[in-house]
Amino acid sequence: MKSIRIFCPATIANLSCGFDVLGLCLDTVGDEMIIHKSAEPGVRITKIEGANLPTNPEANVAGVAALALLHEWQTDFGFDIEIYKRIKAGSGIGSSAASAAGAVFGINELLARPFEKNELVKFAMKGEQLASGNAHADNVAPALLGGFTLVRGYNPLDVIRIESPDELHAVVIHPQIELKTADSRAVLQPTVPLKKAIAQWGNVGGLVAGLYTSDYDLIGRCLHDEVAEPYRKALIPAFEEIKNVALQQGALGSGISGSGPSIFALCKGLSTAKAVASGISVVYDRIGLTYETHISTVNPNGIKILNQD
Amino acid sequence: MKSIRIFCPATIANLSCGFDVLGLCLDTVGDEMIIHKSAEPGVRITKIEGANLPTNPEANVAGVAALALLHEWQTDFGFDIEIYKRIKAGSGIGSSAASAAGAVFGINELLARPFEKNELVKFAMKGEQLASGNAHADNVAPALLGGFTLVRGYNPLDVIRIESPDELHAVVIHPQIELKTADSRAVLQPTVPLKKAIAQWGNVGGLVAGLYTSDYDLIGRCLHDEVAEPYRKALIPAFEEIKNVALQQGALGSGISGSGPSIFALCKGLSTAKAVASGISVVYDRIGLTYETHISTVNPNGIKILNQD
Repeated sequence: MKSIRIFCPATIANLSCGFDVLGLCLDTVGDEMIIHKSAEPGVRITKIEGANLPTNPEANVAGVAALALLHEWQTDFGFDIEIYKRIKAGSGIGSSAASAAGAVFGINELLARPFEKNELVKFAMKGEQLASGNAHADNVAPALLGGFTLVRGYNPLDVIRIESPDELHAVVIHPQIELKTADSRAVLQPTVPLKKAIAQWGNVGGLVAGLYTSDYDLIGRCLHDEVAEPYRKALIPAFEEIKNVALQQGALGSGISGSGPSIFALCKGLSTAKAVASGISVVYDRIGLTYETHISTVNPNGIKILNQD
Repeated sequence: MKSIRIFCPATIANLSCGFDVLGLCLDTVGDEMIIHKSAEPGVRITKIEGANLPTNPEANVAGVAALALLHEWQTDFGFDIEIYKRIKAGSGIGSSAASAAGAVFGINELLARPFEKNELVKFAMKGEQLASGNAHADNVAPALLGGFTLVRGYNPLDVIRIESPDELHAVVIHPQIELKTADSRAVLQPTVPLKKAIAQWGNVGGLVAGLYTSDYDLIGRCLHDEVAEPYRKALIPAFEEIKNVALQQGALGSGISGSGPSIFALCKGLSTAKAVASGISVVYDRIGLTYETHISTVNPNGIKILNQD
C-alpha cells in the first residue's frame, strides 16, 4: 500500500456523568486525511485545507502523533500527510483528536498494522497533549475504536470499548463562539462533595448497564453531570434552554460535549433526533447566534478507510 | 398458602469502587425465616434464634419492614414471623438487610405477590433505617433481586440488576470484632478530590462492563476504592495483609465488605476461592483473631423459598 485516504470522525467526550472517562464516536461529521508513503524519511504535513494550522509536524497534532508512533516503529521511509479539516477547532467535538487519531491510524495501515487499534491510543494522545497541554484519551479513544469508550485509567492506559444499542442517535449543536479548553477547566472545583460523587458513579454504572442492555430509558436517567456541567454551563449561550428543548422534544438526555461549547443530546431513533435538532436550532435562531448542527448514529468502527492503493 | 420458609442471603455492599451504589448477593450464608399467616391482624415476631434481638415488631428490622409493606397493602389478617439468624449482626455482610428483605419477600409471597421484587426494596429499606439510621438499599437490593445490583439513586429509587459471569466466586472473612457502622461512616471525608472521584467512576463503569462481558481481568482491574477504603482500612485488623494475601493467592480484587469489618475477595473459579480463603485464614490464625470465612458463588435469585404450604 502506498497511500490511504481516511475519514476521521468527530467524537463526544464526557457524556454528562462520564466526565473525563467516557466518549462516543460520530459517523456523519469528520475530517478527511490522505497519507502517502514517501522515500524521504520523517513526517511532512504537505497540505491543510479548511483550517489555519501549522505545517511544521512538530507543531501540528497529526504530525506529533505520527512522530510518536514512528519513535516506536522506525522506518527508512517517511509519510506525507494531507489534512482536510471539516471539524472546526475549538468546537468540543474532538477536532484535534480526529487529526491525531487519523495520522496514527493511517500510518499504522501503511505499515501493515504493527500495532493494535488499542495501542494506537497512546500515540494519538501525544497530539492531544500538544493541542491542550493534557494528554487525555477521551476523544482519541472513541475516534480510533468506535462506539462508546471508557478510559478507566492512565497508569497504565486502560481503554474499554463498550457496545451501544442500534437506535441510539446523537445530536450536536455547535454555537460558533470561542471557548478555550483551559477556561472550561479553570471553572471546575478541585474537590467534589461525596454525595455528588456517589450520584455520579451511580450514573456511570447505570449508563454502562443501559448501553449493554439497550435500555434507552436507563441511558436517559443516567445522563446527568453533578461535577462539570453546573460550573461550565454558564460559559455556553442558552445552555439550559437548549437542554430543556432537547428533553421536551424527546431526547434521552443532553449535556455539554467535551469541554464545550457544543451541546449534545442522545436520542432513540432518527425521527426524534431530527425533532431535537430542529427544536434546538430555533433557540439559536431566535437569539441570532450562528451555529452548526449534526445528527449521527454511533459509529461502531471509528476511523474508516475510504480508498487505498 | 398459609406459611412459607425462606433462605435470606447475606450480601456484600460497596464492592470497592461501588461505594454506596453496588452490592452482590451470596448463596452459602444467610438466615432462615418462617412466616405464618395468622387470623390476628398485625405483625408478631414469635421466635428469634441465634441472636439477641427485640421481638417488638416496631423495634425489629424484620417487623418494621413488614409493617411498611402492610401500610401499603392492608389485610384483615396478620403474620407471625420466626427468625433463625445465621448472619452475625455487625459483620458487614448485610445481617439486618437479610431480615428486612426476608420479611417483605415472605409476606409478599403469602399475599400472592401484590408487589414486584423491585417494589419491595423500599419497604425493606425501612428496616435498614431502624438498624443504622440510614434507609439505604445497598444490601436489601441484592438480597431481594439477586446477582449484582446498582442503586443508581433514591429520588426516585432506581435499582438496576446487573448480570455477572458464572465462575465468579466471593470469599468473605469476618474477624469477630465489633465495628459500628456509625464509626465506619465517621472516618469518611465529606469531599473527594476530583482526580480520585474520576478514577472511582472510571472503575465503576469498567466493573459494570466487565460483569456484562465476563471479562474477569477487567473486573479485577476495577476493584479499587479511592474513597472509603483508605480511611476505613485502619479500623480492620491486618486489612492490608489480608488483601495482599488474597491477591497473591489469585483473587481478582479484595476490599472491605459494606462498612466492615468483613473483608471480601472476588475470584474466578472455586479452586482459587478456596486457596484465597485458606491463605487469608492463616493471617488471622497467626495473630490469634477469631474469624469466620465464607465461600460463595453469586446468588442470581436472591431470597429462596425452601418450603411453603
